[in-house]
Amino acid sequence: MEKKLEEFKQMLAEVVDLGHASAVVGWDQQVYMPRGGAVDRGNILETLAAIAHKKFTSDEMGKLLETLKPYAETLDPDSDDACLIKRVAHDYEKETRVPSRWVADFARVTTLAQSAWEEAKTEDKFEVFQPHLEEVVELRREYADFFKPYDHIYDPLIDDFEPGMKTVDVQRIFNALRPQQVDLLKQIAAKPEIDDSFLHIPYSEQGQWDFGVDVITRFGFDWNRGRQDKSMHPFTTSFGVDDVRITTRFDPKRAASALFSTIHEGGHALYEQGISPTLRRTPLSDGASMAVHESQSRMWENMVGRSKAFWKFFYPRLAEIFPEQLANISLEQYYRGINKVEPSLIRVEADEATYNLHIMLRMELEIGLMEGKIKVKDLPEIWNSKMKEYLGIVPPDNREGVLQDVHWCGGSFGYFPTYALGNLVSAQVWEKLNQDIPNLEDQISQGKFDEMLGWLRSKIHRFGKKYESQDLVKRVTGSTITPEPYMRYLTKKFTEIYDL
Amino acid sequence: MEKKLEEFKQMLAEVVDLGHASAVVGWDQQVYMPRGGAVDRGNILETLAAIAHKKFTSDEMGKLLETLKPYAETLDPDSDDACLIKRVAHDYEKETRVPSRWVADFARVTTLAQSAWEEAKTEDKFEVFQPHLEEVVELRREYADFFKPYDHIYDPLIDDFEPGMKTVDVQRIFNALRPQQVDLLKQIAAKPEIDDSFLHIPYSEQGQWDFGVDVITRFGFDWNRGRQDKSMHPFTTSFGVDDVRITTRFDPKRAASALFSTIHEGGHALYEQGISPTLRRTPLSDGASMAVHESQSRMWENMVGRSKAFWKFFYPRLAEIFPEQLANISLEQYYRGINKVEPSLIRVEADEATYNLHIMLRMELEIGLMEGKIKVKDLPEIWNSKMKEYLGIVPPDNREGVLQDVHWCGGSFGYFPTYALGNLVSAQVWEKLNQDIPNLEDQISQGKFDEMLGWLRSKIHRFGKKYESQDLVKRVTGSTITPEPYMRYLTKKFTEIYDL
Repeated sequence: MEKKLEEFKQMLAEVVDLGHASAVVGWDQQVYMPRGGAVDRGNILETLAAIAHKKFTSDEMGKLLETLKPYAETLDPDSDDACLIKRVAHDYEKETRVPSRWVADFARVTTLAQSAWEEAKTEDKFEVFQPHLEEVVELRREYADFFKPYDHIYDPLIDDFEPGMKTVDVQRIFNALRPQQVDLLKQIAAKPEIDDSFLHIPYSEQGQWDFGVDVITRFGFDWNRGRQDKSMHPFTTSFGVDDVRITTRFDPKRAASALFSTIHEGGHALYEQGISPTLRRTPLSDGASMAVHESQSRMWENMVGRSKAFWKFFYPRLAEIFPEQLANISLEQYYRGINKVEPSLIRVEADEATYNLHIMLRMELEIGLMEGKIKVKDLPEIWNSKMKEYLGIVPPDNREGVLQDVHWCGGSFGYFPTYALGNLVSAQVWEKLNQDIPNLEDQISQGKFDEMLGWLRSKIHRFGKKYESQDLVKRVTGSTITPEPYMRYLTKKFTEIYDL
Repeated sequence: MEKKLEEFKQMLAEVVDLGHASAVVGWDQQVYMPRGGAVDRGNILETLAAIAHKKFTSDEMGKLLETLKPYAETLDPDSDDACLIKRVAHDYEKETRVPSRWVADFARVTTLAQSAWEEAKTEDKFEVFQPHLEEVVELRREYADFFKPYDHIYDPLIDDFEPGMKTVDVQRIFNALRPQQVDLLKQIAAKPEIDDSFLHIPYSEQGQWDFGVDVITRFGFDWNRGRQDKSMHPFTTSFGVDDVRITTRFDPKRAASALFSTIHEGGHALYEQGISPTLRRTPLSDGASMAVHESQSRMWENMVGRSKAFWKFFYPRLAEIFPEQLANISLEQYYRGINKVEPSLIRVEADEATYNLHIMLRMELEIGLMEGKIKVKDLPEIWNSKMKEYLGIVPPDNREGVLQDVHWCGGSFGYFPTYALGNLVSAQVWEKLNQDIPNLEDQISQGKFDEMLGWLRSKIHRFGKKYESQDLVKRVTGSTITPEPYMRYLTKKFTEIYDL
């Protein structure tokens, strides 16, 4: 059995190596690749993905799993080996259910859909994207059917990003959350607007870069095992637990954008850097799920990075780098400025109080499309009416509406909910963290993060992908994913800021 | 047959993609990787290499080649397909002769030898490296034996870098060259030393970078299909004909170092960027050989970059960037400074008149080791006596002597000669180029390089790896590799500079 297990791990190690190679190649594509490299780059990524898929779904892997699954039952269920066999068996079962004919169709259709979406977005022509999106939806419905029987056609899609999570669970959570968020927003809207004009003047890129680096260095980002670069869209990637990379970008119109992007990606990176080295070269050397990953980035970005305690320590430092821009701005004004709530059209620019509403809207549309109750051609209209209902605003065109996100043209249905679930988990973990470290706020206001990071590492990070997200969240907080802590957090914060 | 050919090309395309993935991963390793990434990086590169090797040497590939070889005979021998089949058959035959047991031993031994060499070099302890080098030599002797019958045991090693070239050919060339170079060096040594002290004062890195970029941009380097970064050791790499990358480095003690490094690597890159796009994703989308590749870098670096015509155009620009450093230096002084001949201990710092002597010394030692006539333990002594004989100087320790180069610890025997052969080819091509473009010197002194680059593209670059180097050099210059043009070039240049 030892020998079988070794064989199994060796095969997985090669799959992981190929994944890391793709990650390096993909990172370079977004960070340093000259324009001309695009064609060959697509070939390289396609070949790496095809070889990794073939290896992972091979009959040899299937036979090894058949032998190892009963063996796993005899092991301590919390052992690395037991978790490894269980998680790999789940992924193997999913990947082998999908015929290669579908994979090829999906690759072809989404490649064309990507170009069509770019054109549609640039020229504000939804009709250019519509037939492609119809094909994508059809393929995704077919995809779901490979996993019959299911409780809901959307289940297999959510499961791809949030293993073990069901549509009905997410709906229950969101249905409880939505009216409370909408109500909070209405209360805020009735209050005077916060002045954040000092955030919309020029700040030097170098100053922003240096400040962001200072912040995540104090958080505990290990520069011997990671780096930061610039890219069009900020992201985190990992080439192994000892080489975790983040990117940021500078928006001339929004001075806080690069900073919060660095903190957000830094949060993802702290998670990856904290995964136990014993999981090296296994598929468990990864985040537990998208939502758990997002909980870490959101916690550092929002609970820490948008807190008053944080700015008590960092505001004097920021004011030293930008003495002119912040000459007449008090700590209190700055804190209120970066927490200004304002319903806006674009998800990625949304504040804490409105973000989840963008997500819920998207998930409702996705479920409608999958169920066949919504037609692609009706999306713009439904989008706009839901925007009106949840956020009280309507996009002037589809560019700032239904065409804004890249996810659908790539066929990523089921991805959006994990952003909102991540917010909820961040608040659950934050409550627990503050129970366990009662003077956490004091520590943060002194620029001390080691105890907090140590707690996160021991409770979450080190386990990597050993547990499914609901299981992990319950182990850490005593409950599966639930909206109450997030609503408590939002209400407390904005009641104080807006004097509700 | 069409279908077989398609299958063959598809398999090769995947091998090429894997090679490009390794190139990206290797580039990042040398350019941006944080220290911690080393362990996982080794795994990634090993897995990519193993998969590519397995694919290339598969039975399936062998069967396709058996079918396609007779077919190739029916094609125009200059066609892409005929050349592809022929070159791949050669490489397949070589790679499949080497048992995987040897490949594994070699990987293990050279990995340990690398660390031992680093320690030996740092601490000047040849005895630390000696037992490892003995193992490497033994493995290389065994390697050669896989290719019996051979005319000389060194032949299969040269063939790895310079396909088709024989030891006896190289020896004949070098034997003709050595006395002439030694004699030229003696004549120069009898003349007054050139003052190049102005090159050994601080020059800003940014100024050097900008100047180097200006130069290779004028040469024709396409920044939409390439880029330059910094690394410890300058190199050129390619992820496809449309993404060719170079690196440079800044030596605070040698102001011209970064510039000539940029020009040298830029020369390699112009070659890669000029390969016909019809060869994309085939193994022919590469340089013809190491020597031909080196001929391109050396030509741009030396024949162009160290010529008076070049500096007529560029010196005023350089003086504008560095007005203080070059305040009292005339064009003539500058030209003489960068062409100063001075026997030195370190190969990579050697000038044009001495460089080949460093190479000949190394090749003689390699041949002696392979023939069993030289023992590893005697290398330091033999090294020093040959340095005395060829260059008139003796290293004070082994760090600046036998331990200086990385090649042997990696088992790269047969590589060194290609550097000198590249110099010879550069002069052969240069003579022909000047015959075909009689006013080339005028063009260069006006900063015009398009006709020269066009000539190189049409005569050399576009063919990629279609022809063996001797064949290609003969097609271009009318002769196989020969030392006379290089000696004519050296003699003319240094007779003028040193008033011989």
